[in-house]
Amino acid sequence: MAGNSFGTLLNLTTFGESHGRAIGGILDGFPSGITIDEDFIISEMERRRGGKNRFSTSRSEEDRPEILSGVFDGKSTGAPICFVIRNREQKSHDYNDIKDVFRPSHADYTYFMKYGNVDYRGGGRSSGRETACRVAAGALAKLFLREKGIEIHAGIRSIGTEADPSSEFSYPFGNDFGAVNSAMVPLFEKQIDDARAANDSVGGIVECRIYGVPTGLGDPCFDKLNAALARAVMSIGACKGFEIGDGFRAAQMRGSNFNDEMHVQDGRAAFRTNHSGGILGGISSGETIIFSAAFKPTPSISRIQNTVDRQMNERKIEIHGRHDPCIVPRALVVVEAMAALTIADYYLREKAYA
Amino acid sequence: MAGNSFGTLLNLTTFGESHGRAIGGILDGFPSGITIDEDFIISEMERRRGGKNRFSTSRSEEDRPEILSGVFDGKSTGAPICFVIRNREQKSHDYNDIKDVFRPSHADYTYFMKYGNVDYRGGGRSSGRETACRVAAGALAKLFLREKGIEIHAGIRSIGTEADPSSEFSYPFGNDFGAVNSAMVPLFEKQIDDARAANDSVGGIVECRIYGVPTGLGDPCFDKLNAALARAVMSIGACKGFEIGDGFRAAQMRGSNFNDEMHVQDGRAAFRTNHSGGILGGISSGETIIFSAAFKPTPSISRIQNTVDRQMNERKIEIHGRHDPCIVPRALVVVEAMAALTIADYYLREKAYA
Amino acid sequence: MAGNSFGTLLNLTTFGESHGRAIGGILDGFPSGITIDEDFIISEMERRRGGKNRFSTSRSEEDRPEILSGVFDGKSTGAPICFVIRNREQKSHDYNDIKDVFRPSHADYTYFMKYGNVDYRGGGRSSGRETACRVAAGALAKLFLREKGIEIHAGIRSIGTEADPSSEFSYPFGNDFGAVNSAMVPLFEKQIDDARAANDSVGGIVECRIYGVPTGLGDPCFDKLNAALARAVMSIGACKGFEIGDGFRAAQMRGSNFNDEMHVQDGRAAFRTNHSGGILGGISSGETIIFSAAFKPTPSISRIQNTVDRQMNERKIEIHGRHDPCIVPRALVVVEAMAALTIADYYLREKAYA
Amino acid sequence: MAGNSFGTLLNLTTFGESHGRAIGGILDGFPSGITIDEDFIISEMERRRGGKNRFSTSRSEEDRPEILSGVFDGKSTGAPICFVIRNREQKSHDYNDIKDVFRPSHADYTYFMKYGNVDYRGGGRSSGRETACRVAAGALAKLFLREKGIEIHAGIRSIGTEADPSSEFSYPFGNDFGAVNSAMVPLFEKQIDDARAANDSVGGIVECRIYGVPTGLGDPCFDKLNAALARAVMSIGACKGFEIGDGFRAAQMRGSNFNDEMHVQDGRAAFRTNHSGGILGGISSGETIIFSAAFKPTPSISRIQNTVDRQMNERKIEIHGRHDPCIVPRALVVVEAMAALTIADYYLREKAYA
Repeated sequence: MAGNSFGTLLNLTTFGESHGRAIGGILDGFPSGITIDEDFIISEMERRRGGKNRFSTSRSEEDRPEILSGVFDGKSTGAPICFVIRNREQKSHDYNDIKDVFRPSHADYTYFMKYGNVDYRGGGRSSGRETACRVAAGALAKLFLREKGIEIHAGIRSIGTEADPSSEFSYPFGNDFGAVNSAMVPLFEKQIDDARAANDSVGGIVECRIYGVPTGLGDPCFDKLNAALARAVMSIGACKGFEIGDGFRAAQMRGSNFNDEMHVQDGRAAFRTNHSGGILGGISSGETIIFSAAFKPTPSISRIQNTVDRQMNERKIEIHGRHDPCIVPRALVVVEAMAALTIADYYLREKAYA
Repeated sequence: MAGNSFGTLLNLTTFGESHGRAIGGILDGFPSGITIDEDFIISEMERRRGGKNRFSTSRSEEDRPEILSGVFDGKSTGAPICFVIRNREQKSHDYNDIKDVFRPSHADYTYFMKYGNVDYRGGGRSSGRETACRVAAGALAKLFLREKGIEIHAGIRSIGTEADPSSEFSYPFGNDFGAVNSAMVPLFEKQIDDARAANDSVGGIVECRIYGVPTGLGDPCFDKLNAALARAVMSIGACKGFEIGDGFRAAQMRGSNFNDEMHVQDGRAAFRTNHSGGILGGISSGETIIFSAAFKPTPSISRIQNTVDRQMNERKIEIHGRHDPCIVPRALVVVEAMAALTIADYYLREKAYA
Repeated sequence: MAGNSFGTLLNLTTFGESHGRAIGGILDGFPSGITIDEDFIISEMERRRGGKNRFSTSRSEEDRPEILSGVFDGKSTGAPICFVIRNREQKSHDYNDIKDVFRPSHADYTYFMKYGNVDYRGGGRSSGRETACRVAAGALAKLFLREKGIEIHAGIRSIGTEADPSSEFSYPFGNDFGAVNSAMVPLFEKQIDDARAANDSVGGIVECRIYGVPTGLGDPCFDKLNAALARAVMSIGACKGFEIGDGFRAAQMRGSNFNDEMHVQDGRAAFRTNHSGGILGGISSGETIIFSAAFKPTPSISRIQNTVDRQMNERKIEIHGRHDPCIVPRALVVVEAMAALTIADYYLREKAYA
Repeated sequence: MAGNSFGTLLNLTTFGESHGRAIGGILDGFPSGITIDEDFIISEMERRRGGKNRFSTSRSEEDRPEILSGVFDGKSTGAPICFVIRNREQKSHDYNDIKDVFRPSHADYTYFMKYGNVDYRGGGRSSGRETACRVAAGALAKLFLREKGIEIHAGIRSIGTEADPSSEFSYPFGNDFGAVNSAMVPLFEKQIDDARAANDSVGGIVECRIYGVPTGLGDPCFDKLNAALARAVMSIGACKGFEIGDGFRAAQMRGSNFNDEMHVQDGRAAFRTNHSGGILGGISSGETIIFSAAFKPTPSISRIQNTVDRQMNERKIEIHGRHDPCIVPRALVVVEAMAALTIADYYLREKAYA
C-alpha cells in the first residue's frame, strides 16, 4: 500500500487501523513559530465525534491526540509534528458473526482482494476512524492559516431528500446541527429519524467556503487548486461527488449567465458574481472559494443484505452495533480539514515564488 | 510555476503556450515493448479538434504530434516519450484590441496576478489548446491499457438544459456527436445552435466508463482511485464538477437503495448493482468504473461584458473570433485521456505489489 | 521543514527530537504478508546502540520500537507501519551551560538560522538519535529483502589513520567490533583509545556490500541506483563522502584496468571483475553492489573550542557528557538500513515494469 | 523507466536518445521574470562540447537548444521551459560491427536486461549525450541563481595519476583546460596524451565551489543539502565518488582538527575554517559550498576486450570511432549544472518558509 501521504510542502502521512493500538500521523513541513492551541485541536476532534449532536454514535471514543514531536513551549519548531490517538479497548466478539463476510458497499471485498487480508472488526485502514487523523492535522493547518487571515467553514445543504433552497451562507450558522440554514434543521432531523426508524441510512450534501485566500494559489495545468481540492475531498471515504462554484448547475447555464464580470472596487479588481467559486484557470482569484461535496448514505444498516464471503459462498448479513444513520454532520470538520491541508500546502508553494 | 506534471510511475509533463512555437510533453515511465500506433494517436487528436462535428471551431490547426524519443521500430523502448505539436502561424492583430483587458471567467486576471504576465493572444498556458498534449499522452496510455484489456469511453449526457433521461451506455454510440443516446442529438444540437444564434454559449455533462479494470487499483486513504480520477478530470480547464457512480444523487438515497449487494457469478464475486461506480473504499472492485463531469459554458462569448484591465480601469469587452459555443463534444477525448493516464499509473503502482 | 520522507513506493517518514517525548516513523508502501520478526528489529536497534562494543556511550537508552499499526498476527498487512520509540527522562541541567552557544561542527548554528529555534539539549532533529528510526525501518526493509534473497552487510575499513590494506570481504567478520578484517581490530581500538585519552575523536570508513540484487534495479538518468544510494548514505549525519565500486581510485585508473570484462558462466553473462561496484549505467548488473562511506570524527569533544552564541558574542565552549570518541562502529547498521530502504524501494519500482 | 525527472519545486524532465531525432527537456517551476540570456546558454553548451579544448572529440555536434516555450520577450514567463536539441544525421554503419555486443563497463548489458532493447548505435538513453540536456537546464538555473548572487565554478584537481597538491581555488583559473591550478595543465595533458597513445583512457577528479549560498538551504533529515548534491552529481554517468568538504580525508582526522570553530566578523557569525564544506547538519552555513567528484576513465577504448553478446556468446570487441580519452574537462559544466539545479530547487523550497 502506498498513498498514505498528502501534500507537497506541507505533507501529512497517516497510519492506524480502527481496531489496532492507535491511529495518528506525521505532519511534515509545518512552519516554525506557529502557536499550537491544543484546546482548538481537541474541540475539532470533538466536532468529528459529533459532540453536541444527538445523531452521532453513542460509542465513547474520546480522541485526544498526543503530540510527540515538533512542538516546544506551545509553538511549532519546524520539525515534523507526530500525533498519536490511542484506540480504546473493544470487545472483538461484537464482530465475530460477520468475520469473513464482505459488508456491502464497504471496502471489505476490494481490500481483501488487494492485500489478502482485511480487518473484519471494522474496516481496518478503510474505517471512518481514519478521518480522525485528518481532523487533527487539519486543525494544525487551520492554526497556520488563521495567522494568514484564512478561515474555512463547512455547513450542511441537504440531508436525504430535503435540500436547503437558500444560497446564503453566514457563519456561525446558529445551530449545533451544522446546517447552513437553521430553518432546515427540523427537516434534516426528520430525514435521519425516519431512516433510523427504518433501519436505514441517508446521505447529504456539504458546502464549504474558504475566506481570505489571496490571489495566486494554484497552477494553471494539472495542479489547479480546484483539482487539488477535488482530490482532497473525494479522498474522504463516503464522498461521491465534488463541485466548485456552480458546479453541475453550470452545465445548464449560458455563458452570459455564468461568466463573472469584473469591476473596480477600492482601487482593486473585484467580481460582480462568483459562479466560478473563487478559482479561475486553477488559480485563486481572491474571491471566497466555494465548493460542495456529496456524501452517500452510511453503508452499515441493520437490514438483511445479500453478499458473499471470503470462500465465495453467498451469504446474508445483518450489521448490528452503533452506526450513524447519517455521517454528514460529522463529515463537516473532515471536509474543512482536507480543505485546510490543501490550502496551506498551496499557500507555501506559492510563497516560494512570490 | 510548478504543477505541469501528472502521475507517479507513469508521469506526464507538458509545456507550451497557445501562441508560442509549440506545445507538447514528455511521457515518462511508459513500459517498453508497447506497439505505438501513430494512426490511433492522430485519430484521437482529430477527435479533440472536433473533426466530424460541425460545432467545432473552423480554425484549422492540424495537430500531428512529432514523437522525438522513446519509440523505435514502432515500439516503445521504455525511454521517455517526447512529442511536440507545432503551433500554426497566427495573425497576432486578432487580439490587439483586447490586449491588457481581462476576459471574464478566463484565467487572464489570476494568471497576471500570479506571474506578472499573461499572453493576451489567447491565454498562453491556460488555453484550451493545452489539452492537445493530454490527448496525445492519453492516446499512448490507451495503447498500453488496451494490451491489458482496459477500454475507456466517454459520451455526452446533457447539453445546456437538455438532459438524457436514459441510463444505458452502449459504445459505439451510433452518432458522430458523441451523445450516449442518439435520440438526444437533435435536442443537443438545438441547444448549441440557439446559444450560437444568441452570441452565447452552453455547457454540458460527460459520462465516462472504464471497462476491464482489474480489482485492486487504488489505495484506501488519500490515493483512492476515485480521488485520483477527480483530480485528473477537474484539472481540465472548463470542468466544474465530478462525481463517481451515483454521485450527487447518492446524497438523496437511502443505504438500502444505494448499497451494492454481492452474489457469486461463475465462481467469482459479483455485484447486483453498481451505484458505487466500480470503486469501493478507493479500490477498484472489478465492476465498470463510471464517473461524470460537468463542463461550464465557454467563457468566450461575442457579447459586451464588463471587466477591468491591467491598469485597473473598468472596461467593456466583446470577444470576437472563432470560439466554440460549446466545448463539450471536444472534451470527450480529453476526459478519456485523463482517465487513461490515471488508470495506467495506478495499474503500474498496483503491479509493484501484486 | 520538509524533507523527513524517503522513498517513492516504499516511503519512510520520521519524526522526533532527541530530548522530546519520542521518536519514530511511518513506513508506508510495505508489502503485505511479510513476516515481522520483532526480535530481529530489536537486535538491529541493539547494534546501533553499540551493544557489545566498549566504545559506545554508556548512556542507557534501550530502544524498543512499539509498532502501532500495519502488523497483525506477526505479518505485515500492507497498511502503513508506525513505530514509536520513547525517549528516556533526562536531566536537562546537563546542557544548561551550553544553552545559546553553537557547538562547532554541529547543526546548532544552521538549525537556529533556519528555524529560529534549536534544542540546546542535544540537537533536536539534528541529533544522531534520529538514526534510530532509520534502523527500525531498515530492519523492516531487510525482512522484506531477505524474502527476495537480498542481504546487506557493512564493515569497517578504516578508523582514523589506520586503514585495512586488504580487499577481502567475508561476512560474518568474526569480531564484535565490526571490522571487515579482524586483524585490524587492535589497531582500530588504539586509534579510538588514543583519541579518547586526548579528549578528542576520530572518524573512519565503512564498506557496504549488497548481495543478491537482481539485474535491472535503477534507471539510466537521474534515478541511477548509485545516485539513490549516495543520497541515502550521505543523508546520515556524519557522512562526508560516498563512493561506488573503485570510487575515487577509479579516477587514477586507465580504462583498460577499470573496465569489467564479461564472459559466460553457467549459460549466463558474468563479469571478470567488479570495479564498477555492481551497477552499470545506473542499473544493477547482478554483481554484488559495493560502496563505501566516509565518516567524520565526532564533533563533540571535551576540549575548549571557540564559537559564538545566539546573541553573536564570541564564546568558548567545552562539551561534557557521554560522547562516543568514534561513531563509526555504531554507523554500520545505519548504513545498512539506508541501503536496505533504497534497494527495497527500487525493487518495488522495478517490479511495476517487470 | 521512470526517473527522468529531477527536483521538487524546480523540476527538470529530460528525454532523448543519442541517435534519435532529438534530445531535450522541460524545466518546470522556473520563476517568472528572469532574463534569459541565450548566448550564455550556448556558451555553456560549447563548454560541454569541449570547445577550445584539444582533448574533446572532433565530432561536430553543434548543440543549440531551441526554446519552445516559457520565454517571451527575453524573459521567463513562469510557464515550463521546453528546449529541444536536434541530433545530427549520423552514418549508422559506424556501429554495425558491435551490434548485439555488450561494450564492457557501458550500460549496454544492464539496459538490455531491463528494457529488452538497447540502442547499439551509442547507448541510447545511457549515452553521455544526455548530459547536454542537463547543461541547458543548468544554464537556466545559473541565470536564476546569478540574480540571487550565487555563482558556481568547477575545476579539475586531478587527471589520472597527476593530482594538484594545492588547495587554492581562484576563479577564473587562467587556463582553457579547466585546471584549478594552471601549473598542472602540462602534467594533465601528458596523462591524456599518454593514454591516447596507448589506445587507453584516464579519469580524474573535479572540485566544485558554490559561492553566495545563503544560510538555511537544506533540511536536517533525508533532504540534507549535501545528500541532494551527492545524488545530483552521482547521477552523472561516469561519476564514481562524491565528497563534501574534506570528504574521505575527514575520516582520518581528529575532531579537534576537523571542527570548524566560529567567531564574529562584521557583526555576523563566521567560520575560521571550512572543513565541513559549507553545510552543517544538512543545512547551508553561509560559507562556500565545496565538493568533489571522481570520474572513471572513459569506457570506450580502442583495445580488444572480452565480452558477451545478446545471444550469450563470448565475443571480442574493439571499439573504434571518436572517443575522448578523458571526459573530465567536458564534465566540469555538467557538474556545475547539476549543482545549479539542486541549489535553485532548494532555494525555492527554503523561500516557502522564510
